[in-house]
Amino acid sequence: MIKTSTTLLAVIGDPIVHSLSPLMQNWMINYFKINAAYVAFHVKSNQLEQCVNGVKAFNMGGLNVTAPHKEQILNFVDQKSREVELLHAANTLKNENGTITAFVTDPFGFIESLGKNQSRFAGANVLMFGAGGAAKSVAYALSQLGIDKLIITDIFEEKAVQLKELAKNAFKISRVETIKIKTNNLNDYITDSQILINATAVGMHPNAAKSVLDDYSAISKQHYIYDLIYNPGHTALMLNAQKKGATVQNGLDMLLFQGLQSLRIWMNEDYELKIPALNELKSIMKKELGIYE
Amino acid sequence: MIKTSTTLLAVIGDPIVHSLSPLMQNWMINYFKINAAYVAFHVKSNQLEQCVNGVKAFNMGGLNVTAPHKEQILNFVDQKSREVELLHAANTLKNENGTITAFVTDPFGFIESLGKNQSRFAGANVLMFGAGGAAKSVAYALSQLGIDKLIITDIFEEKAVQLKELAKNAFKISRVETIKIKTNNLNDYITDSQILINATAVGMHPNAAKSVLDDYSAISKQHYIYDLIYNPGHTALMLNAQKKGATVQNGLDMLLFQGLQSLRIWMNEDYELKIPALNELKSIMKKELGIYE
Repeated sequence: MIKTSTTLLAVIGDPIVHSLSPLMQNWMINYFKINAAYVAFHVKSNQLEQCVNGVKAFNMGGLNVTAPHKEQILNFVDQKSREVELLHAANTLKNENGTITAFVTDPFGFIESLGKNQSRFAGANVLMFGAGGAAKSVAYALSQLGIDKLIITDIFEEKAVQLKELAKNAFKISRVETIKIKTNNLNDYITDSQILINATAVGMHPNAAKSVLDDYSAISKQHYIYDLIYNPGHTALMLNAQKKGATVQNGLDMLLFQGLQSLRIWMNEDYELKIPALNELKSIMKKELGIYE
Repeated sequence: MIKTSTTLLAVIGDPIVHSLSPLMQNWMINYFKINAAYVAFHVKSNQLEQCVNGVKAFNMGGLNVTAPHKEQILNFVDQKSREVELLHAANTLKNENGTITAFVTDPFGFIESLGKNQSRFAGANVLMFGAGGAAKSVAYALSQLGIDKLIITDIFEEKAVQLKELAKNAFKISRVETIKIKTNNLNDYITDSQILINATAVGMHPNAAKSVLDDYSAISKQHYIYDLIYNPGHTALMLNAQKKGATVQNGLDMLLFQGLQSLRIWMNEDYELKIPALNELKSIMKKELGIYE
């Protein structure tokens, strides 16, 4: 129940109507018995400064920031975390008495989502599809996980090259390559990798038949396939890789853990979501998404 | 449950910590099944412009405005209702696609709170203690109720005279007088009045022993005594007047109905609170206030 003392949190984006964050965050707020409420605001790009001033005037706890504002919002913050400085993007603003600090919790959400599969990453070769905002966060996470080599491919080669430079120079991943999306020897790269990551929207609802891969012959049970998509719960990439014995994971846990990390930052508390609670929340979110499997 | 589509409403004030509005409004929001949430923001006077810009940037439904901002907020609104123009004060801002209209629902709340006692007002002589913001709203309501004569008294005579001028010239009450608070012939004025209204804070918790009256000998069962205070539920004025057979009423219904009227304005719906619902809400609010009687 909202009280006079309740801290307001919100997600801003344009569009915002499909955001799962209010459902997810209010579930966690209730679960952890936090005196807060979380709403969604449809904020246009030309309103970002007014928006941040509003956070200060209302003494809100903070914001989540989603597309297309994750970079532009940085023009209006007072401080940036080290990760925000590296990624030039933020998804979390924290307000402390009118001082706004920007954080990015996506890389953290990726790492926490790995669970016991985290041990696969040290020294691994990773093939990543996509070089956009999500891929940038994952690349930073990969640098923290101590991978050996990152291969990036994107339909826009220039974006792949930009992310390569960032991953090498800023994130300090020692070996980074880019390859063309339709390269003839893609299977050689797959065979040479232990981990494949889809950080594109290819295969996302309502285009669930699509996949970044046409040929799964190089996929084996040694592979760990991480698809950042969470709708559908099993993408064509995941289903086909599973048939070859690979271990697969979708993006729902990353979504949850980046949100949990934002809540930890706002509240200065080290909340933990145990497996039963995590599963309950995931089933609520799948229901909201219309995923029954 | 808050969803992505939920409209945010809020009350602003300084201080705000004791506001009952979030409890009351969220109860009504739940009761009427409105897709909205209502929070409280502690906003300082120098943040009012940022605050109104924030309402626009966040596309909030609107605000309640409480002390000390009810007059100063008018510097930052786009439109004013007729009542706001007359009272130079607002307690409700409505946002429609970035256009902010100011309303004042206190006079309406006073009138709706009267119930069947409303018939007492046409042609009545009314003695009112207090000439501040609440008294101003009540004076406007009295003009709408067709009273014959208003007698105003306040410890600050100048304020009483200012309200007299407003009540005569703007509200068009034909007969308005001011008297000194400790006038010797106060009992003559009481005898000559059918209705007494306390619009001061005298007798409010924690000073519940105080009253605007020392001598109740002129009070009779013909009198209707309206005390705008709602904590305690029965003020010393009410208790002593009741002993003389007078009909008494406290300010809780006015608080509820001004809030209900704000909700009607924000949502463009003509909500009605039936007696059982009204009583349930009042008992919740009394419990919150620590009133058990």
